[in-house]
Formats: sequence, structure tokens, C-alpha cells
Amino acid sequence: MSSLTEFLAAQQQLVDQALDRLTPPESALPETIHRAMRYSLFAGGKRIRPVLCLQAAVATSDNAPGALEAACSLEMIHTYSLIHDDLPALDNDDFRRGKPTNHKVFGEAMAILAGDALFTLAIQTLTRIDGLDAARKLALIEELSFASGTVEGMIGGQVTDIEGERQTPTAELLDRIHRAKTGALLRASVRMGAIAARGDTQQLEAISQYGEHVGLAFQIVDDILDVEESSAALGKTAGKDAVQGKITFPAVYGLEASRAMAQDECRKGHEALRIFGDRAVRLHEIADLIVDRKS
Amino acid sequence: MSSLTEFLAAQQQLVDQALDRLTPPESALPETIHRAMRYSLFAGGKRIRPVLCLQAAVATSDNAPGALEAACSLEMIHTYSLIHDDLPALDNDDFRRGKPTNHKVFGEAMAILAGDALFTLAIQTLTRIDGLDAARKLALIEELSFASGTVEGMIGGQVTDIEGERQTPTAELLDRIHRAKTGALLRASVRMGAIAARGDTQQLEAISQYGEHVGLAFQIVDDILDVEESSAALGKTAGKDAVQGKITFPAVYGLEASRAMAQDECRKGHEALRIFGDRAVRLHEIADLIVDRKS
Repeated sequence: MSSLTEFLAAQQQLVDQALDRLTPPESALPETIHRAMRYSLFAGGKRIRPVLCLQAAVATSDNAPGALEAACSLEMIHTYSLIHDDLPALDNDDFRRGKPTNHKVFGEAMAILAGDALFTLAIQTLTRIDGLDAARKLALIEELSFASGTVEGMIGGQVTDIEGERQTPTAELLDRIHRAKTGALLRASVRMGAIAARGDTQQLEAISQYGEHVGLAFQIVDDILDVEESSAALGKTAGKDAVQGKITFPAVYGLEASRAMAQDECRKGHEALRIFGDRAVRLHEIADLIVDRKS
Repeated sequence: MSSLTEFLAAQQQLVDQALDRLTPPESALPETIHRAMRYSLFAGGKRIRPVLCLQAAVATSDNAPGALEAACSLEMIHTYSLIHDDLPALDNDDFRRGKPTNHKVFGEAMAILAGDALFTLAIQTLTRIDGLDAARKLALIEELSFASGTVEGMIGGQVTDIEGERQTPTAELLDRIHRAKTGALLRASVRMGAIAARGDTQQLEAISQYGEHVGLAFQIVDDILDVEESSAALGKTAGKDAVQGKITFPAVYGLEASRAMAQDECRKGHEALRIFGDRAVRLHEIADLIVDRKS
């Protein structure tokens, strides 16, 4: 069995090739929008959501038609949300992963439309999966669209986060923001893999638990890294989140308690995988990686 | 039979009630986004796309489960496109139908997210139609997402339109913009009605023809009205389109030839309805209304 690093690199390559195949080429008219979509889609993302989706499918069965398309649709939605989040009216970020953000390269109008277009492409991608019955394709679309929506979904979390900058940080508000803003799509990632693999109710329930715990651990570690990186690299005591007045786990619970919470969520994630046995070995490794990562 | 005016008022009310039922209430958390979505959704739209969808269903059969949901999903997509189009980075409009645009009331960040959210809601709405088989629900989603997309769809038309402002107006460019920017969604409106009504291939083909011709007539008349209204009301010789350097039918063909083209498209629209007989009486009336309207 290959090392996790080699394995993840191979999975990323698989996803990148599929994304390339599923996205209109730069030469398709009108060219600008397809260039803008591809710029952000291939800007060096780690493909966490697609890999979670693919591995949830592997844990569930040997045959998962459409798991790769589902994986790509998740990355398209994630990328659309990043493009819109980075806009001047929202987080106003000029750089992402060391590269100029979409609107810095293509202008605000094209960035807004490129985000819209990636959302549309995600849905189109799910409608045209080969070899999967209509009911399951529909279940995938339902899963993705509710995880992206305003009620306990990604857009709702984004709104609560923006409004939360003016509120007292409480555990309840933090929980609501996280579950919606990043949690819903991470949960949907593993559920969509299991749906494509024709998982039964018990498998779907178990994979949802895994997704929730690992999603929460992911967010806690993100918040911790923001504090630690800023302290180390910049000699400051507060990171970007604190400067923006964002509600974070370290701000609500403190650093030590946050670290313990991340470990605890990771442990619960492992437990949820029990019914999958050896088929879930990569999902176990990914849970550990999420908590132990340094960036 | 009621007059067309009374009939359209009743149809609008039907659509408004369904939109109200299908959209999260203003009290749903986070409240701001639902207020922003509802502000634009209930800002006095004429519901042309929903009415076309409903009447295409009526023309096709007596039983069309989901035609009303399909009609509402079209209005959600149309509203999302208006909110994003009005943004400062795009058309920068402060007013629409005499009311402040979404970003003037809720700010740019919320307007971007409200547009995103209405798109998401349109897809969610189609996934949860009662009484329609999964294959047809999927066909509706496919229809809507491709009509909204970059390749010969709404977003593609918007991009070509923006880039066209810097190019020589030609008949070919005008045709490409129109077909994508407004034509694709108008065509999808009638097709979705016919799909919900379980139309056969011949019916779908005929209704598509109607949608294309009436959609083209609609756009030509829009362009003519822009020139005429500005000349009459403002004493100017050029309307907003001309000021913005937009490519329009009067600019390419002249006013008289444009009027003749609209009449000709309307006539072809009537012809396409032949196979539906008396069931299409309202679609005939709507075609005439589109060409004869004064605003």
C-alpha cells in the first residue's frame, strides 16, 4: 500500500484530470469566462472534499458510478464559494494560496460570473453522470444544493459569519457558523460518495457521523493554525481571524481546550467508521492528517 | 373566458403564492439573507417566464405535477441574474422597476449572496417536487442548469454582452448574445412546462420552436422600446442601451426592419403552436402581447 502522501497526490491527479474533462475548454466561447473558471479551479487546491467523497465511495462498495463526477461537483462549489468570498465586498482578499485572486486577474464582474458559472457547472455535472439511476443522481443534487443553501448550509454560514463579526463570540454562535459554513459541505462530501456507491441507510448514517466529526476537527485546527502561524511568523499575538473580529474556537474556548476538542472529534470520526472495516483505511488516515497537519 | 389581463393577474397571484411557500420565511435564520432574497423576488416582476411555463404545461396535458415548482424555479433564476446584473461591477443600476436595487438596500455582500442563494433555491425546489418521477425532475434540472450556463446559456450571454460593448455590432454577435442571454431561459420556460406535463418528442419540439421565436420577438421589442421611450420621455435620440454601447436590434437593423422582424418571429411562434390546437389559446395571446406591448 502506498504512503498517504503518494496516495493523496494520485487522488489529486485523478480529480484534476476529471475536472479538466468536465469543464469547458478555454477555447469555448465566450473564452473569458472559461479562462476565469479554470484559473481558480486549477489554482492548487488540496482537493480535500473530492478525496473525502471518493474514499467514502470506496468504503461503501466496489462500484460507485458517478463518484468522480460527485467529487468534481464538490470542488466546483467550493471554488465558486472561494471566488465570491474573496471579492472586495466580502473578505476583500488579493491573494489565495500565493496567487492573485480571481477578481484581481479578471475583474470583479467576471469573478462574480465565474462563481455563478462554477455553481451551474456543478449541477450540470451531476445531471449527466453515466451509469447511475435518475433517483440517485437526484439524491446527489439534493445533497449538494441543500449543503450549499441558506438554511444550515454554506451560504447561511457565510451570512452568519459576516454578521457575527459584530456580535459577542459565544459557543452557540460558533457552532452554528461552523456547521453551516464548512461543515455542511464536508458532510455532503462523504454522503455523496456513499450515495454514488449505493450505500444503505446504516452506511449513510455512519459516514454522515464521520463527516460531521472530521469537519468540525478540520475547522478547529484551521482556527488554531491561524493563531499559531501569525504568532510564529509575524510575531503577533493575533491572527487574521482576530483582526477581522471572526468568531473562532481559540477565541471561545482557548487554545489548549481547542486542541483537545479537535483530538476528541477525530477520535469520534474513527469510531464512526467501524462498520466499514478495512475498506475505510484511507478515511482513518485522512482524519489523522486533518488533526496533525501543520498548514 | 376571462380577458387576458384578468387571466395574467390571476396567474401572477398563483405564482406569487407558490414563491412565498417555496422560499424560507424572513424569520428563518439567518434572517438577513431571506429578507434580501424576498425583497427582489417580490419586487413586482411580471412573471413572464413562470406564466410561459404554466401555459406550456396546459397546452401539453391536463396533468402536470411540478409545473408550478418549475415556474417558480425559473423566476428564482431570473431574479438571481437581475440581482447580480445590477451590481456596481456589472451594470451598476441603483433602481429596478422604480425600487432601489438589492445591493442599495442590503449592501453588495448580501446582494451577491442573495443571488447565489436564489440559484441554490431554484435547484432545491426542483429536487423536491411531489408526484413527478425522478427522471423528469432530473430533466427539469438539466434544462434549467444548461439554460443558465456559459455555453449558449444565460451567463455566457451576459459575458458576450459585456465584451460586445467594445466590439463592432454585427448581426452574428447580436444573435449569439440574444440566444444565450435571454433566449435560452425563455426557451427553457416553455420546455420545462412541457416536460412537467410529460410531453412527447413532437410536443417538446413544437414548444421549443415557439419559445425560440417568442423569445427573439421579446428581445427585439425590448430593444425597440428602449429607443422609443428615451426619445419620447427624455427628448433624447438614444436610449440607455446606446449610451452603454450595447449591441441592439435597432442598432444593427434599424427601427423599421426590427419591427418587421418582431412581427415575423411572432407569426412563426403562432405557427409552431398548431399541433396544440385550442389548448394553446393563452400562448397565442401571450405571443401577441409580447409584440404589441408598450412597456
